[in-house]
Amino acid sequence: MNITIIGGGSLGLLFGYFLSFSNKVEFVVRSTKQYESLTHNGLLAERRETVKKAKHIHTNLLLPRSYKTDLVIVAVKSYHISSVLPLIQQYGPQTPLLFIQNGMSHLTDIKQLPHGKVALATVEHGAARKNDYTVRINGIGKTNLANYRGEMKDLLFSVFSPLENEFPWEWNEDYEVMMAKKLIVNAVINPLTGVLKCKNGVLLNNPHYTSLTEGLFNEVMTAFPMLNKQEEWRNLIGILQSTKDNTSSMLSDLIHNRKTEIDGILLPIKSKERPLTEALYHAIKGLEKESV
Amino acid sequence: MNITIIGGGSLGLLFGYFLSFSNKVEFVVRSTKQYESLTHNGLLAERRETVKKAKHIHTNLLLPRSYKTDLVIVAVKSYHISSVLPLIQQYGPQTPLLFIQNGMSHLTDIKQLPHGKVALATVEHGAARKNDYTVRINGIGKTNLANYRGEMKDLLFSVFSPLENEFPWEWNEDYEVMMAKKLIVNAVINPLTGVLKCKNGVLLNNPHYTSLTEGLFNEVMTAFPMLNKQEEWRNLIGILQSTKDNTSSMLSDLIHNRKTEIDGILLPIKSKERPLTEALYHAIKGLEKESV
Repeated sequence: MNITIIGGGSLGLLFGYFLSFSNKVEFVVRSTKQYESLTHNGLLAERRETVKKAKHIHTNLLLPRSYKTDLVIVAVKSYHISSVLPLIQQYGPQTPLLFIQNGMSHLTDIKQLPHGKVALATVEHGAARKNDYTVRINGIGKTNLANYRGEMKDLLFSVFSPLENEFPWEWNEDYEVMMAKKLIVNAVINPLTGVLKCKNGVLLNNPHYTSLTEGLFNEVMTAFPMLNKQEEWRNLIGILQSTKDNTSSMLSDLIHNRKTEIDGILLPIKSKERPLTEALYHAIKGLEKESV
Repeated sequence: MNITIIGGGSLGLLFGYFLSFSNKVEFVVRSTKQYESLTHNGLLAERRETVKKAKHIHTNLLLPRSYKTDLVIVAVKSYHISSVLPLIQQYGPQTPLLFIQNGMSHLTDIKQLPHGKVALATVEHGAARKNDYTVRINGIGKTNLANYRGEMKDLLFSVFSPLENEFPWEWNEDYEVMMAKKLIVNAVINPLTGVLKCKNGVLLNNPHYTSLTEGLFNEVMTAFPMLNKQEEWRNLIGILQSTKDNTSSMLSDLIHNRKTEIDGILLPIKSKERPLTEALYHAIKGLEKESV
């Protein structure tokens, strides 16, 4: 299959790497530097002490208008979705799209697209972009997939099932539930680790941080009354345990003075009735302005 | 007058320095090292580029049982009050006491004392202990004084009025109002600067931090319905402006891996109905455990 990945960040590179073994993968990236780097070096995945090269990738800077592909995976950060909408529209409305973003704010952008087949993914992988052509794999979790519009189950099944063991995935019937479950985890772990500047596991090891985590979780959960609170708490604890040595993406963004995804994660749920969420939103927005 | 100061921290040294010019000042300190240091070097106050020596001070490690003094100033941190209660009790119940602590938690300790004359002070000075015998004066604000038990206005007037211009002070009729005003300022500036790791002024310069400051202030104010909200907000803004380049005592304690005064400051007001206060309490308690 011909798969196009828009965005050469950690997730784009991670998906591209795994999908390259049974598909032709083309990257569409914004920066000339990354374009040249990927073209010259290929795509590498580093895992513990091992470095492996992707099978075959192709890189593009600007997309030729007539370009045909079987699946476009949009892997830019949520706050860049609006800037790539014109690019996405160059693919005809029959082209299937898969969006992998944190938070929920990108759904309003996606709504505007004329495409009939749109799916969403949330991921639990730990990956970091080491350089323009190398993704560092810290841990492979699960890719959660769901239809947003139209039917993409068979298509995504044929793309992801060859990877079953190396790159596990799960089909979800309800994208709203799937997104909400991910948002809860993001809304708790990211802002707290960002403000407290700690690895994920410290939220469990430091009893005062655990109180704080529970307080924020309880508040966030009031936005998702359809979900089971105990189940989501167990899920959160499990993720904190399995990613205990990870630096959250938000903390990593703050350390490197990059914009964080706080708008996509907390804007949909912050309100006067959720004072902690409101406070953490402002703390992270404020930290973005200060050098850390 | 003979004045005894218990505690050789920044405030003890600051008061001792100013009072030494018209009184005989004796320090009672816990550490042998500081005892020897003060005895050998005298007490120095550093201000911008100038260093000045206190007029005459005397230092004691353990207090002789028969020691007579006209005023005991207790200048230890609030969480050390309980450990100096036996020492204070060696001064007869007729000895006037003045307590200078942050927060309000020390009031429960003071209640137990048999002394008939007890006054309280809150301070707005910026002072830091540079070493065992040197206090660094960053800014002189105001000393607020009030009776807690018995009548000490005349005594304190005679102690503090000679210093009017250099070391301004104000008499307050109601200690509860005086303490509440100070607690509001402490409860907002200290935890926020501690968590966000910024100088006081940044709370005003970074609009997101200002939102956060306002949110916490509004919550803290619900604990003090007798005070005028607008007036206290103006007071807080004024203090943030005049101390804009200062590192708050709580941030300074965290940076130096010292215990903070969070219990004295937020325990009296934290509750489930004040989620931000509760969250900041846990954030600071948690940060105390982590290396910063």
